[in-house]
Amino acid sequence: MCVPVGATATVAAAIAPHLAHGAVVSDVGSVKQAVLSALSTALPAHAHIVPAHPVAGTEKSGPDAGFASLFAGRWCILTPPADADPDAVARLRALWEALGARVDVMDARHHDLVLAVTSHVPHLIAYTIVGTASDLETVTKSEVIAYSAGGFRDFTRIAASDPTMWRDVFLNNGEAVLEILQRFSEDLTALQRAIRWKDGQALYDLFSRTRDIRRSIIDAAQDTAAPDFGREHR
Amino acid sequence: MCVPVGATATVAAAIAPHLAHGAVVSDVGSVKQAVLSALSTALPAHAHIVPAHPVAGTEKSGPDAGFASLFAGRWCILTPPADADPDAVARLRALWEALGARVDVMDARHHDLVLAVTSHVPHLIAYTIVGTASDLETVTKSEVIAYSAGGFRDFTRIAASDPTMWRDVFLNNGEAVLEILQRFSEDLTALQRAIRWKDGQALYDLFSRTRDIRRSIIDAAQDTAAPDFGREHR
Repeated sequence: MCVPVGATATVAAAIAPHLAHGAVVSDVGSVKQAVLSALSTALPAHAHIVPAHPVAGTEKSGPDAGFASLFAGRWCILTPPADADPDAVARLRALWEALGARVDVMDARHHDLVLAVTSHVPHLIAYTIVGTASDLETVTKSEVIAYSAGGFRDFTRIAASDPTMWRDVFLNNGEAVLEILQRFSEDLTALQRAIRWKDGQALYDLFSRTRDIRRSIIDAAQDTAAPDFGREHR
Repeated sequence: MCVPVGATATVAAAIAPHLAHGAVVSDVGSVKQAVLSALSTALPAHAHIVPAHPVAGTEKSGPDAGFASLFAGRWCILTPPADADPDAVARLRALWEALGARVDVMDARHHDLVLAVTSHVPHLIAYTIVGTASDLETVTKSEVIAYSAGGFRDFTRIAASDPTMWRDVFLNNGEAVLEILQRFSEDLTALQRAIRWKDGQALYDLFSRTRDIRRSIIDAAQDTAAPDFGREHR
């Protein structure tokens, strides 16, 4: 099932009567507890439910947004229920590995927390700052666009993602997103204070620490899929 | 002068005695009011001060981070003082245009506000979320790295920028940065509330509105410098 998370229950109810005995049902949604719950409710007991989340993609949506190396080297997270059939999980793992992905298995609840950090909150922040910029009275929209190369444009790419998909992510992973947002807000407030009081050392220390994470991501080859490769060479 | 903004006064004082009569002195710093003030204080009256800010570059610093098309199609903002010599401004404009840049002229104060929106605050937000992620007890650093393709990695690229350069930006453009941050925090709080109360329409409306800005940036060719071109085709 490749649908916005909010459509899971409806689609599952529609396909439920037509599933072969022992069919493996999976999805590609960005939230997993809500999907697991919706599928468990709607599908017959003879179906094997193995939710999945390939952590890959661009700001574009739909079949035309695919390309051959989309999943190469990327991680796909499976979140089977505790009593899942091992064979069904193995079959789904084989499918994703055949597409070039690396496969990890974790609890749906932990998945939702990890993705709140690495995907959901970054998207929310990007949407927010792009909205803030477009609402300013003192800076024109054409100025924002012209000078976006200073960093802003990276946020606009994320903030161009599909509105329905992302609305559903936040409606279905609110708890984890709000927890991470609270921490982010505390950390941002500390930096605001450092700027106000001209505490250069506090700024320098954070700015140095964050570089290490970037290096680790490059080392882990999570920023070097073929069509994306040029970015490191700008 | 290509130095961190905080080093401007020291470097200006060092070169001041050696400047030819009528020399044009410029810089490439990301903050302009503080630079204009530092140069005006340190340099002799016979020098022409024309501060500049090429809005281009990557997270990398230093001479080795340059490439031939770095400034092609990018904007360079000149912020000459009100009494600047028109010929000096014209000479600097010609230099940047010869490098392939488009040139704009604006007041230093307005520059600092525009760049707070399009560059400084986005960098601060990126540094913050990367720091927040690395401090979590419930999500491991290796999980953050593995699943960074969900959006987080775009923030880590920005957050890998030079710590000294960015410390100096925030120490020298605090007023504008704090003003924009305040608005951002208000907007983020509104979204937190929408998530908590499951107000899907409010989320959908913002997420739709921000797409338009992305399209305008692509139309304005501020996301299509040659080494970066692959990003639109992921």
